[in-house]
Parts: sequence; structure tokens; C-alpha cells
Amino acid sequence: MSLVKKVIYLYSPSGAVRDRAAFKRGVRRLTELGYDVEVDQDALTRFERFAGDDATRIRAVERAANSGADVALITRGGYGITRVIDRLPYTSIASAIENGTQFVGISDFTALQLALFAQTGARTWAGPALCEGFGVGGVSGEIPDDIMEDCFADLLMGQGEGTGWRQDRNGHISETDFVIEDATLWGGNLTVLTSLIGTPYFPDIREGILFLEDVAEHPYRIERMLAQLMRSGVLARQQAIVLGQFSAYKLTSHDSGFGLPKVIGWLRNQLNIPVYTNLPYGHVPTKVLLPFGLKVDLTSSGKDVLLYWGHH
Amino acid sequence: MSLVKKVIYLYSPSGAVRDRAAFKRGVRRLTELGYDVEVDQDALTRFERFAGDDATRIRAVERAANSGADVALITRGGYGITRVIDRLPYTSIASAIENGTQFVGISDFTALQLALFAQTGARTWAGPALCEGFGVGGVSGEIPDDIMEDCFADLLMGQGEGTGWRQDRNGHISETDFVIEDATLWGGNLTVLTSLIGTPYFPDIREGILFLEDVAEHPYRIERMLAQLMRSGVLARQQAIVLGQFSAYKLTSHDSGFGLPKVIGWLRNQLNIPVYTNLPYGHVPTKVLLPFGLKVDLTSSGKDVLLYWGHH
Repeated sequence: MSLVKKVIYLYSPSGAVRDRAAFKRGVRRLTELGYDVEVDQDALTRFERFAGDDATRIRAVERAANSGADVALITRGGYGITRVIDRLPYTSIASAIENGTQFVGISDFTALQLALFAQTGARTWAGPALCEGFGVGGVSGEIPDDIMEDCFADLLMGQGEGTGWRQDRNGHISETDFVIEDATLWGGNLTVLTSLIGTPYFPDIREGILFLEDVAEHPYRIERMLAQLMRSGVLARQQAIVLGQFSAYKLTSHDSGFGLPKVIGWLRNQLNIPVYTNLPYGHVPTKVLLPFGLKVDLTSSGKDVLLYWGHH
Repeated sequence: MSLVKKVIYLYSPSGAVRDRAAFKRGVRRLTELGYDVEVDQDALTRFERFAGDDATRIRAVERAANSGADVALITRGGYGITRVIDRLPYTSIASAIENGTQFVGISDFTALQLALFAQTGARTWAGPALCEGFGVGGVSGEIPDDIMEDCFADLLMGQGEGTGWRQDRNGHISETDFVIEDATLWGGNLTVLTSLIGTPYFPDIREGILFLEDVAEHPYRIERMLAQLMRSGVLARQQAIVLGQFSAYKLTSHDSGFGLPKVIGWLRNQLNIPVYTNLPYGHVPTKVLLPFGLKVDLTSSGKDVLLYWGHH
């Protein structure tokens, strides 16, 4: 590691921090990892279910953009960005990114990522949030995930070059090696992404690679959202769909065999592009960091997939 | 009542019937009310969570359209229409409506109503489904709702002229009498309606009156959907929003005062048109029947609102 400590700026653009112990553990963990941590003045503010009222959260985003930190990291997701999406300081954020601040987040943060890219073309990172990433532990005894922490360190050291993984049985199995070059990687939380269709905050990305994840959404709802993305023409404009982790949903006896594999099969039947599965990204401990808006290459062979952006 | 019995055709375009006792009670109740009931051959079919596979449900809709019945009534909602929305027999349905068959339903049926109107301009009715409308009872001892049954009878007798109700405290209170004339009434289930934004199945209705209801959606999700409707330009093109019943959601301590009244207040602040509340329509026993796609008048005075279509 370099002798100059990297700076992480923590701020709360969405839901109020519910678990202060997780917040504290997260700050301690980042410090142990050798980072300098700066905490936004409203990181722990609460207004109703939000981390401060709308104006407060907008100012927090503005301060994150002006922080000069190496990484601006959200404390948690929840709900709150969609509400102020027409008033976020996109120019300040884009300018901060130009000057070396990387914006990292997940879940509700997807809305900021899409809107920012649509409005300015600036690139961000899909990755952890503080509390559920670095702040796990307490009575559960869980420790922060190695792979997530390594990817985060790679980002700060400028060493991340890509990510590879093995699909599950629902994935696109290439008979011969398959290569996609120079495709814009984009995506995030399926519910949040879908909630921007039809608005000026949904970027028009052609020939891209779209990655998706979600939490606590029943497969029939996942299918309905995929159908909206498909029928609004978004999926047909991509070169590949990459499904991450869809976690924490509950099936019932009424589903009678309907479930996520059926949804993926249905999607594959509707599309002429590969649908990959099992990307290590989502509301789960093990997640990689993904460059939203960057040109990447994808190669697949059998069940194995590699996303590569080291040359950009 | 006329001496010739009116005919109700029951079919299942969406989810499989879960409660066969409710189905039987519903059929018995419609018979007691003096209607002739015809049951589609696949009304009780199940495939996974659906009332038959996609082809089966499409054929059921086709048979409903060819039934010559006075009313084609869904057995229940659930999920299933969105999945086949690109393959429904819209011309047959429109032609059946032209020849006097009224299509009535709720919930997932909203998708058919929007798509049909977008594709053909044909008008349908937002109203009950068999099981949760006419089939209530059993151990609960509940009986079908009077107002719902009276509105249904009015539809069959050609006597429905409109509906009036009193708003709750969150409603738009007119200081002076307010009148909207000849506006297209449309709407339905908020989740289902929102899931068609950006697709060819979302009608472009200008200067309309949009009614919305939902069930088991947290207010923050209701707000996110309203935000999508607003930012895609749909709300600003209407003359009024009419909120029906939003039922069966659960708040938590984390909401800290956030709830549906806050969402309605937020919406009202965003819009320059009246937002009415408490329309007796939704996933609740007492619901009126509403003509989707018909030109209506709306008058409001204080907390009272009247929707009127008797002259059309």
C-alpha cells in the first residue's frame, strides 16, 4: 500500500441508518484496513424513514462530491434517491469523479448511478454499502467478506482489472468460446432500475451488458420487471444480460414449481442474446465491484464467464 | 329485472384459483342473484402459479370474447396477463365489447385493460373478481358487499350513471365547486399499471382522470411508483388523480411517521392538479364499478366528489 492513506467519505443519501452498531463496526473496519474515514455531518441523521429530509440528503451528496476523498461510500441503501432525483447535483458529482473521487454504492444507489450516467455520462461503481458490507458482525459473529474487501482495495489501488465466475445450472452455457468486446457495463438493482423506465433518468445505452440483482422480490415480480425492461425495448438493445444474486424471497405452496429458474428460462426464450447467471453481486456478502458505465469485454466458455476492464 | 336472464362468463386469465370453496360460493351467489353463469373449461385449471400455461390462458380469453355473454368476469387476479400481453386477442375482445359483452375485473386485469385500450380504444370495467367479490364467506361469515352487487346489477341493467363519495382528510378539498367535463377515466392497480410504462401497452391518455389503488404495497413503494408515473410525464397530462383504497400494507417502527398521508402530501406538492382520495375502489369489499376509457365528468365540493357518466 502507498504511504499516503486513502480517504473514504461516508454519507447517507437514502434511508436512515437503522443499526448504529453496524455503522460503528464499519468505520472501525475501514480504519483497520488502513483507510482514513471521514463521516458526513448528516450520516446518522433521521427524518421519518430517511437519512434526513430531502434538502438534507441533497446537501450530503453535494458534500460527498466536494470532499476530495478517494471514495464516496454510502452508509446504506433503503429508499430516498428516487424522491430527489430531479434535484441531485449531477454536475458536482461528475466533476468530483473527473477529479478522482470514485462513487460506490448499491441498491437505492442504482437510481443515482443511472441518473448521473443519463445526465452526464459519468461513471460510478456498483459495490458495497458501509453497514451491510464492512459493518457486519455483532452477535452474528460474521466478518466482512474477503472478496468484497479485496475488490474494494483493488479499486483504491487502481488495480481492479475484472472479475470471473462460474454460472449455475440456469446460466448460458457456451458451446464454443463467446466474446463481446467494448460493451458498456451498466445495471444494478432491478426494482430501482425498472422504476426509472420512461423517465429522463434512464440512460439510453446501446449494445451494452446489463447486470441485475434484487432482494426480497418474489420471482413473479422479478419476471414482471424483466418483462417491462424487455417490452420497453431495453433488453433487445443489449449484447448480454448478466444476472447477479436474487436473494431473500419466499416461495409458497401456491407457486407449485414456479420459481426463479422458470423466470430465467422464460427470459431466455424471449431473447436472442445470452443470459448469464450467478454473477457474485447483490444483497449478499460476497460481491465484486463493477464499473457502471465503463466499456468492458466479456468472454464465456462453458459455465465460466469473465468480465474484463483492465485495458480501459 | 328483465325476464331474459343475463349471462356471466367466468374465466381465469391470471393466477390459478386458490380457494375453490370461494369459487363455488361465487357461482352460487351469482345464480341466486338471477344470473345465468357459464364457467370456462379452464377456469379451475392450474399450471405452476397460473390458471393454465400461457397458451391455455390466451385461449380462455379468446373464449370469453366469443362467449356472447353479457359480462365476462375474471375469477381472480394474481399474475399472468403481463406475461402474455403481446399475444392477447385484442381484436376479438374489442369486437365482443362492440357487440355488448362487458369485460369486468381488477388487479392483474388492469394490464389487459390498459393494453386493450392502447391497441383498440375499447372500453372495459374496473370492478370485482368472482372469488373475492361474490365468493366471500365460509368460516369468515362475510357476505358479498351490497354496494358492489348493486353496481354490478346496474351495469347489467344499463342503469349505472356514476358514483359519489366523501374524501378523507388527505383529500383535495375544494373551496369552490370544481368541475371537470368530458375527461377519459382510466387507471386501476398502481403496480400493474406502472409495470407497463415505456411499453406499447401503456395508452397515451391526455386530459384524463386517473384512478389508482393497490394492496400490500408499502407507502414508500407507492411513492416510488407515483414518482415514476410523474417523471415519465403521465400525471401532468391528466386533469385529476383519484386515489382509491391502498390496503393491507404494514408500517414498521423504522418508518417513524412516514406513511400514506405523507406520500399523498408529497404527491400533491409535486402536481398542479387535484388529488382526490378515498374512492371506494380497490382490494376491499366495498367497491364501485368504473368505466375504463369512458368520458366522464367530475365535480367536487368540499370533501364530496361525484364521477358522472350517465350522459354517455
